[in-house]
Amino acid sequence: MKQAERMKRLGTETAFAVGAQAGAWAAKGHKVYPFHLGDMNIITPENIREAAMDAMNSGKTGYCPNAGIPELRELLAKDVGERRGVDYALENVAIQPGGKPVIGKFLKVVLDPGEEALYPSPGYPIYESMIEFLGGVAKPYTYRETDSGFELDMDYLESLITDKTTVLIYNNYQNPMGAESSAAEMEYLAQLAVKHDLWVLSDEAYFEIRYDGKSQSIVKYPDMYDRTVILYTFSKKFAMTGWRLGAAVGPREIIAGIAKINTNDESCSNHFNQYGAVAGLTGDQSGPQNILRILKERRDVAVEMLNDVPGVVCHKPETTFYLFPNVTEAMAAKGYKKLSDFQEAALHDIGVSFCTRNHFGRPLPGETQKYIRLAYSGIDTEEIREGLGKFKDWIAS
Amino acid sequence: MKQAERMKRLGTETAFAVGAQAGAWAAKGHKVYPFHLGDMNIITPENIREAAMDAMNSGKTGYCPNAGIPELRELLAKDVGERRGVDYALENVAIQPGGKPVIGKFLKVVLDPGEEALYPSPGYPIYESMIEFLGGVAKPYTYRETDSGFELDMDYLESLITDKTTVLIYNNYQNPMGAESSAAEMEYLAQLAVKHDLWVLSDEAYFEIRYDGKSQSIVKYPDMYDRTVILYTFSKKFAMTGWRLGAAVGPREIIAGIAKINTNDESCSNHFNQYGAVAGLTGDQSGPQNILRILKERRDVAVEMLNDVPGVVCHKPETTFYLFPNVTEAMAAKGYKKLSDFQEAALHDIGVSFCTRNHFGRPLPGETQKYIRLAYSGIDTEEIREGLGKFKDWIAS
Repeated sequence: MKQAERMKRLGTETAFAVGAQAGAWAAKGHKVYPFHLGDMNIITPENIREAAMDAMNSGKTGYCPNAGIPELRELLAKDVGERRGVDYALENVAIQPGGKPVIGKFLKVVLDPGEEALYPSPGYPIYESMIEFLGGVAKPYTYRETDSGFELDMDYLESLITDKTTVLIYNNYQNPMGAESSAAEMEYLAQLAVKHDLWVLSDEAYFEIRYDGKSQSIVKYPDMYDRTVILYTFSKKFAMTGWRLGAAVGPREIIAGIAKINTNDESCSNHFNQYGAVAGLTGDQSGPQNILRILKERRDVAVEMLNDVPGVVCHKPETTFYLFPNVTEAMAAKGYKKLSDFQEAALHDIGVSFCTRNHFGRPLPGETQKYIRLAYSGIDTEEIREGLGKFKDWIAS
Repeated sequence: MKQAERMKRLGTETAFAVGAQAGAWAAKGHKVYPFHLGDMNIITPENIREAAMDAMNSGKTGYCPNAGIPELRELLAKDVGERRGVDYALENVAIQPGGKPVIGKFLKVVLDPGEEALYPSPGYPIYESMIEFLGGVAKPYTYRETDSGFELDMDYLESLITDKTTVLIYNNYQNPMGAESSAAEMEYLAQLAVKHDLWVLSDEAYFEIRYDGKSQSIVKYPDMYDRTVILYTFSKKFAMTGWRLGAAVGPREIIAGIAKINTNDESCSNHFNQYGAVAGLTGDQSGPQNILRILKERRDVAVEMLNDVPGVVCHKPETTFYLFPNVTEAMAAKGYKKLSDFQEAALHDIGVSFCTRNHFGRPLPGETQKYIRLAYSGIDTEEIREGLGKFKDWIAS
């Protein structure tokens, strides 16, 4: 029997295949260093767990409103707004079963079939998948490597805009690159969005995964408030990935549309867990502080060791828990031309498992440099040391 | 700024407006008898809560696979299969954040724009909403009242089928009517689905909310296994509405498509709560038995009292927690022509809050009888007595 045409346009996260490969290799008795995981191996802080359990046991096991419990919406409006220098109220927030649902729901509300949406590549693969699933035209923009990190290729981005372009997806504090816009870059991007009257999804999943400096949001620039929806998640800051709790934060009429989709898609997000999120926002902050401390230690070790590997250049992002080293020379020295061969060999020769640039969107014409992506959210410092020690010896051998 | 065209085709559950009306009335200090609630005022059984909390505290706070934890998928395959007389394995099950997501995800996998989908009216309003949101053509079929309940108007249903019809949505153990197919009716419907090569969504949310007799599934009829997706939910049997946990159960290739949508929509359902569901399926069954006992007591009181009201006829369904009394004569006696006026007057005169036929899909041409829907899942027996006592006096006055 025939399936619907739209299913042919649905993509996925190919990074899961890397996880499956690593799992199969480990199942054969091999030691694996899991740098491929986007998950966290840190338990959710106790005060959050306690609050969710209290709510569950006090009978918050029935439905809640489609956009979430008012208490959480109000708290999140205040928290998200204050950190970004804008004003939000309860009506600007729709709680979601994770940050990810915001991508598809935002696009459903604003993107018509045939319209064009700009999104980053390398970038989170669900952008491309959902744009195309909904009948939109996915137009990837990209980044350039600099001496200290990555910057938007703004000329290229601007050249992609046509009169059919209606959406810009922007992921500052970027997965997989750890890229971060300068103030000038963010301002220019905001002006571009206003000039071309674009809706903006600002994926700020890593806004508060930050080791130094201060995060900024594009929403605070002139005329951006009414066109920007922020993807917020509890997953990273509070180590709540498996809870599936996040929010869409933006202009009221778009949030009302997203909440109407909630009613159709899943009624509401889990009720009692939202009280855990309330405790996360209002309670003792030693939990998220501890998470950042752990992640920073891992980053420092990993960046230093990667830069000690011949033919590898790794920038040091002050945000996200990802590293995106340039391995062009190291691959050449080892005789690898394809990233997939390099990735598989590293797994099978030394058990070091990572994703590559190719797991984050289709490569663009003219890409010559080779990059791999290492996550340090799911691997302890000692394992990082051991794994990257083996990686250095392997590359040098 | 322009929103997407598809948003104009998105419906909602208008029953929420009744809840809002009732809430506003109660907030003014009036006593309200909440027969409008589809929610349950019974807490989730303790063994389920304990298992979820143990999983949470043991660190199951990270992601799980997109289709759910293998243990739950396997258990559910066995449980759902055995109760329906068919064989399912893990690959036939994709865990969802509720039963509701199965409606949209099933339609996304099988229904192309312009194709026609049959669905019940009166029926759960999300069917119509999601068919039209996805660009399909929503074609409502209906039921006829009999001496003992409701039966499918099969001739009418058959007359709706064209060469563009690809989907049948069937909700046996029906919300809002409590309707239940005879074996002959279900068999005839199955033959029709096979003859016209239709995909079937069998919404079996109330399959195990059953006071007497044995539930049957259309999936067991010849050639139905490969075309039927079952909507399963933990919400009703285990009083877990606010947990948002359910599953799509059906042919492997459709379940694989639905699981791929999971990856795009929300990654996975909440991880630790799935261990609560495992405890529900494998542990002490006094919890669900107690829930059924409570509901049956409420049903018996409500049906008896409704039939004692002049001009009201209420059948006694052995399933669901809904009643769908015919109030045509009672309304006429009180001088009401419109269901909405009758509903509002009952709320404001006596605090009795209920939904009407009009909250469950657009009325069909030729409908002359008037029905209201009372849910007894969210109101205790004593309140049922008090509320329906007032209802009787009000109608008689």
